[in-house]
Amino acid sequence: MKIAALQMQATPGNVAANLERIEKAAREAARDGADLLVAPELATTGYGIGEAIRDLTEPANGPTIGRLGAIAADAGVAIVAGFAEADGGSVWNSAAFVTPQGQTTVYRKSHLYGDYERNLFQPGSPRAVTFDHGGRKLGMLICYDVEFPENVRKLAQAGCSLVLVPTALPAGDHAEFIARRMIPVRAFENQVFVAYVNHCGADDRFAYAGLSTIAAPDGSVLAAAEAEGEALLLATIQPEDFTQSAAQNTYLRDLRI
Amino acid sequence: MKIAALQMQATPGNVAANLERIEKAAREAARDGADLLVAPELATTGYGIGEAIRDLTEPANGPTIGRLGAIAADAGVAIVAGFAEADGGSVWNSAAFVTPQGQTTVYRKSHLYGDYERNLFQPGSPRAVTFDHGGRKLGMLICYDVEFPENVRKLAQAGCSLVLVPTALPAGDHAEFIARRMIPVRAFENQVFVAYVNHCGADDRFAYAGLSTIAAPDGSVLAAAEAEGEALLLATIQPEDFTQSAAQNTYLRDLRI
Repeated sequence: MKIAALQMQATPGNVAANLERIEKAAREAARDGADLLVAPELATTGYGIGEAIRDLTEPANGPTIGRLGAIAADAGVAIVAGFAEADGGSVWNSAAFVTPQGQTTVYRKSHLYGDYERNLFQPGSPRAVTFDHGGRKLGMLICYDVEFPENVRKLAQAGCSLVLVPTALPAGDHAEFIARRMIPVRAFENQVFVAYVNHCGADDRFAYAGLSTIAAPDGSVLAAAEAEGEALLLATIQPEDFTQSAAQNTYLRDLRI
Repeated sequence: MKIAALQMQATPGNVAANLERIEKAAREAARDGADLLVAPELATTGYGIGEAIRDLTEPANGPTIGRLGAIAADAGVAIVAGFAEADGGSVWNSAAFVTPQGQTTVYRKSHLYGDYERNLFQPGSPRAVTFDHGGRKLGMLICYDVEFPENVRKLAQAGCSLVLVPTALPAGDHAEFIARRMIPVRAFENQVFVAYVNHCGADDRFAYAGLSTIAAPDGSVLAAAEAEGEALLLATIQPEDFTQSAAQNTYLRDLRI
């Protein structure tokens, strides 16, 4: 399996422009041989648009996810992207996995960060949302979720070999530590792959750290973006390349609670 | 609170020599203003002595821990050191915290690594063993235990601000990753201090990685030993120096299961 990760400068509040950006990346990913593209948290709306996000919420069967499905079908790659989900009166910070065949799986962020998110969204219940792709089981988390080892563990214990993490990590004191230190440790301590896919640039409220990272089960970094600028990272997800690490670091088998 | 960590080349099977080495370090730690010394896993017996360790096991009220208590009283520093504990027919890979005032707390390693350890020891039950020192709550883990985020989380949730980890990490593919990447992440994801104290040199069975590390709540490394050679690391444990990190990374408060 080959995946592509789009470190993206979203256009705040402009869903059409962001879908166009994702479409371009999906075509490029397909040309590069990838069969899955991952975009950042709230990639379709932009992250830092505040209360304006309420007017851009949609259910998972709304036009935005419909359009993502059409892009996936046209390009021939599955897509994971963050969107603002509404259902009745509730609003979630969600990510959708859409396939060229028209299947959709939605994950709702369970660990909201800070007042900004807690004022806009309701937390999802912390549970393993998984799906099959390329003969493997994959899972999704969003941003702050992955900083809790419990959330990645849950997906690994559910059989995931790859965890996809759309994020909106702001630039700041701990950004490099989280992207480049913690993400590889999350991969290593579960012997899974982790793709951490961030925004770059800035909007009215936040400046983003970039530094998107795809980490392997042995803690190595397979692909990494700079702090500045958009990037399309590519990585081959091949657990068979890491059997020695899996044999030496048998955390899932040895864990006792 | 100031702590000292002894990266130590144990003399295999020679408890008297190892207690002497710890005594020398305890005096040096006291001279340097430390009030707690941490020695490696199975520091009193050596780690890689195989079946011979059975003849060197003792209960927690035996002469080895008694001598450690006398050293602590003489030097005026508390000591954490690994020892081979026997009680009835069971043998544990344990660590003792002994104070100059004669108090002893014992922790039994709950996560044994590999056949070597599983053939020699019985695992302790995975629970938070804590004690008070210098007005703070501290906890102990041993080596492989700390590689499981669940174990550090348990101590942090029990109120520990510092986790002491005697270890016997062998040199190898993942040694630097564990000592220098994972240990700081364990500290950061719980906003605690972690002191990871290893052997150096080699015995008949293992070559040790050294690389002892004391990490702070913000993921920074306060003190670090080289791969080769003994070292006495010193670090000031002052949670008040990390209030900004604690305010930004509120994992313990935000965790939802």
